[in-house]
Amino acid sequence: MNILIKNATLISMNEKKDKIEKNIDIKIEDDKIINIGKNLSDKNVEKIIDATEKVVMPGLINTHAHIPMSIFRETVDGYKLQDWLSQKIWPMEDKLTSDDIYYASLLSFIEMIKTGTTTINDMYFMTEDIIKAAIKTNIRLQTSRTLMGDIDENNKRLEELENLLNKYNGKNDLITFNIGIHGLYTSTKEYIQKCITFAHEKNLPIHMHFCENEKEVNDIKKDYNISPIEELEQDFKDEKMILAHCVKLSERDINKLGRLNASVAHCPVSNLKLGCGIANVSEMIKRGINVTLGTDGQGSGCNLDLFETMKYTALLQKGINEEPTLIPAYEVLKMATINGAKALNLEDKIGSIEEGKYADIIIIELNNAVTNPINDLISDIVYNVKGSNVDTTIINGKILMENKIVKHDEKNIFEKCSQIIERIKY
Amino acid sequence: MNILIKNATLISMNEKKDKIEKNIDIKIEDDKIINIGKNLSDKNVEKIIDATEKVVMPGLINTHAHIPMSIFRETVDGYKLQDWLSQKIWPMEDKLTSDDIYYASLLSFIEMIKTGTTTINDMYFMTEDIIKAAIKTNIRLQTSRTLMGDIDENNKRLEELENLLNKYNGKNDLITFNIGIHGLYTSTKEYIQKCITFAHEKNLPIHMHFCENEKEVNDIKKDYNISPIEELEQDFKDEKMILAHCVKLSERDINKLGRLNASVAHCPVSNLKLGCGIANVSEMIKRGINVTLGTDGQGSGCNLDLFETMKYTALLQKGINEEPTLIPAYEVLKMATINGAKALNLEDKIGSIEEGKYADIIIIELNNAVTNPINDLISDIVYNVKGSNVDTTIINGKILMENKIVKHDEKNIFEKCSQIIERIKY
Repeated sequence: MNILIKNATLISMNEKKDKIEKNIDIKIEDDKIINIGKNLSDKNVEKIIDATEKVVMPGLINTHAHIPMSIFRETVDGYKLQDWLSQKIWPMEDKLTSDDIYYASLLSFIEMIKTGTTTINDMYFMTEDIIKAAIKTNIRLQTSRTLMGDIDENNKRLEELENLLNKYNGKNDLITFNIGIHGLYTSTKEYIQKCITFAHEKNLPIHMHFCENEKEVNDIKKDYNISPIEELEQDFKDEKMILAHCVKLSERDINKLGRLNASVAHCPVSNLKLGCGIANVSEMIKRGINVTLGTDGQGSGCNLDLFETMKYTALLQKGINEEPTLIPAYEVLKMATINGAKALNLEDKIGSIEEGKYADIIIIELNNAVTNPINDLISDIVYNVKGSNVDTTIINGKILMENKIVKHDEKNIFEKCSQIIERIKY
Repeated sequence: MNILIKNATLISMNEKKDKIEKNIDIKIEDDKIINIGKNLSDKNVEKIIDATEKVVMPGLINTHAHIPMSIFRETVDGYKLQDWLSQKIWPMEDKLTSDDIYYASLLSFIEMIKTGTTTINDMYFMTEDIIKAAIKTNIRLQTSRTLMGDIDENNKRLEELENLLNKYNGKNDLITFNIGIHGLYTSTKEYIQKCITFAHEKNLPIHMHFCENEKEVNDIKKDYNISPIEELEQDFKDEKMILAHCVKLSERDINKLGRLNASVAHCPVSNLKLGCGIANVSEMIKRGINVTLGTDGQGSGCNLDLFETMKYTALLQKGINEEPTLIPAYEVLKMATINGAKALNLEDKIGSIEEGKYADIIIIELNNAVTNPINDLISDIVYNVKGSNVDTTIINGKILMENKIVKHDEKNIFEKCSQIIERIKY
């Protein structure tokens, strides 16, 4: 469909343009943005969206999540990480069917559409069901079958991933892949090396949990006889990586990380909730590391509202460093958009509103008591806008939500997910 | 008006009842809750609200704010506290008229109604205009003319407060007072003592900024030759106090604070944004201190959404202490409701849904993709519900918002406030 968005206040995240441009029209043809300018003609346009008094910006990019964990929302309060996993999550995960994964994924995708995230980076299992749900809802997904476990199991998992690559990679613009290694502490060094070789052959980034809490770091030191960062230097070398969490890194570690080909997926809400700590994002930025934002799964990360993650990111660094000038609001917007695109090898396709890029666009309404008056639009978006202010969500040129109404039977999905958790809990 | 709320899931915050009660009706007569139970009769009821699949809970209580600072929202990013105040805020405040204060207050009150806060504790100037706006919008307000400045100015301010007390105290159920002393560092010891005597005579609590950042603590030590907490022990003794922030207190200070008659107004968002730090709320709770929640003014606190403040409170303590079992969700709900009522000397009137208390009630909808499935209702409210999920707000028995629609001309108020800031900025 050809769409014309009229009269927007545009935050394009295109570094060659002004941060904020007024009275801009954006023309979409099929899946692409084809024209950005003033007073564009509506010739051959099938749908006009009036964005007067609204903000148009790129859809947000969530670089670390476990999509089907939507159904485990708020099962963690009062538990320590290991107890929560062993007593609550793993026994429930064992009972999940293909159908469960599909519906749990639909719930996450609806949550994304509602809250303005258009691309998500996933790490889970039964990945084909997640892919099917993404195609069904028209979500841009980067994913991998998670690689971990003992050696036989691991080979089976790599094979599973190879089959998915053969079936879906390059076949659908919405679906891309990376190599999801659960973590250094949950695989043998030998198997990790096999995964790295596979990633290298396929020319795909590696997505991995890294230094999430103290225990993980200690376990790795015991198993590998070197520190986590030294293991990256030794075996991962120049591989492109998306490292989730990176909470337990010293300034020296961060300095070393800055010399590798790694992006960080900062997940502040999950890190706080699980009592992991607060990642030293300010230092990472100082070292030129590409910092991106993730929610983690809803089990620990509560929800997929990346606007909330932006605010936590901006505030935490100011607070713990007792330095209010750290992390200006625009820096955080970059983390949630173009930096995410870079991490996923998609910076020429998404992450900003530019001619030729996919039309992954959100429209935000600011006509409410929480955002007015607007003294600083960028700050207002980072500190006061929430997912609930997203009015319209467009992915790959398709309007998935308009005037806050999504085109899916939400109630049915909520009911299905409640039934799943009712069945598998004990 | 007589109102019957039907079929609610009730979180009454009444410590004698279950945390969650199902299928409950609540009857309101004029300004009071008169009956809570199952299948109540609708005889003489003028209005029925169907709360099926919704949560009914007490309106939230914000124990520290500067109400007219709504117009200064997002003017702080990138500034240090002292620069922001001296370069931005004070020059603008100097230009504020009585009318400006009235409209800026209306904006804050609309924001409260929209986001489920029914009572607010204010500290500002031109207080009569704030009171008029509260009466106009039917907001429950505790306030004081702020006391600070040089000695002549201070006497004038105390006189102003005395006039307000004579005119409004005890005359309107919505309006109560405390003695708002700006801070130890902004008045002389002699004047502070005069204010304490005044508070004692009037039998009103003292509301004061306390140990917000390192600089304040150092300034007090220089001026008073003793530490802030020692000054409280020496001069404030058993006076009932609401102390905002309390960020820079050692464990030993907190132990001493626990022996005084003080509640803490914890304002985590503002404290982070201004780079003050994170108050040691866990230790305060351990010492039996009544911890309550505040947003601070929107200039530093962004907005008045107290649901957000609840989430920050719960997460920050888990994160900085690396202990996920700290501050269970229900503890946070108490801080935002009944603890707030206690701090304001209103615990027999508000803070829980009980027969005989004022009808300050909010109704929350949970039928959305961010809160489903509901595995733990209390956690879901603290971690996933936001002000935007509040469906209905009732204060003093009056319905101020229903189905998310407030009965005020919001757009006009937004425009007025934009005009004010346009006029006074430079």
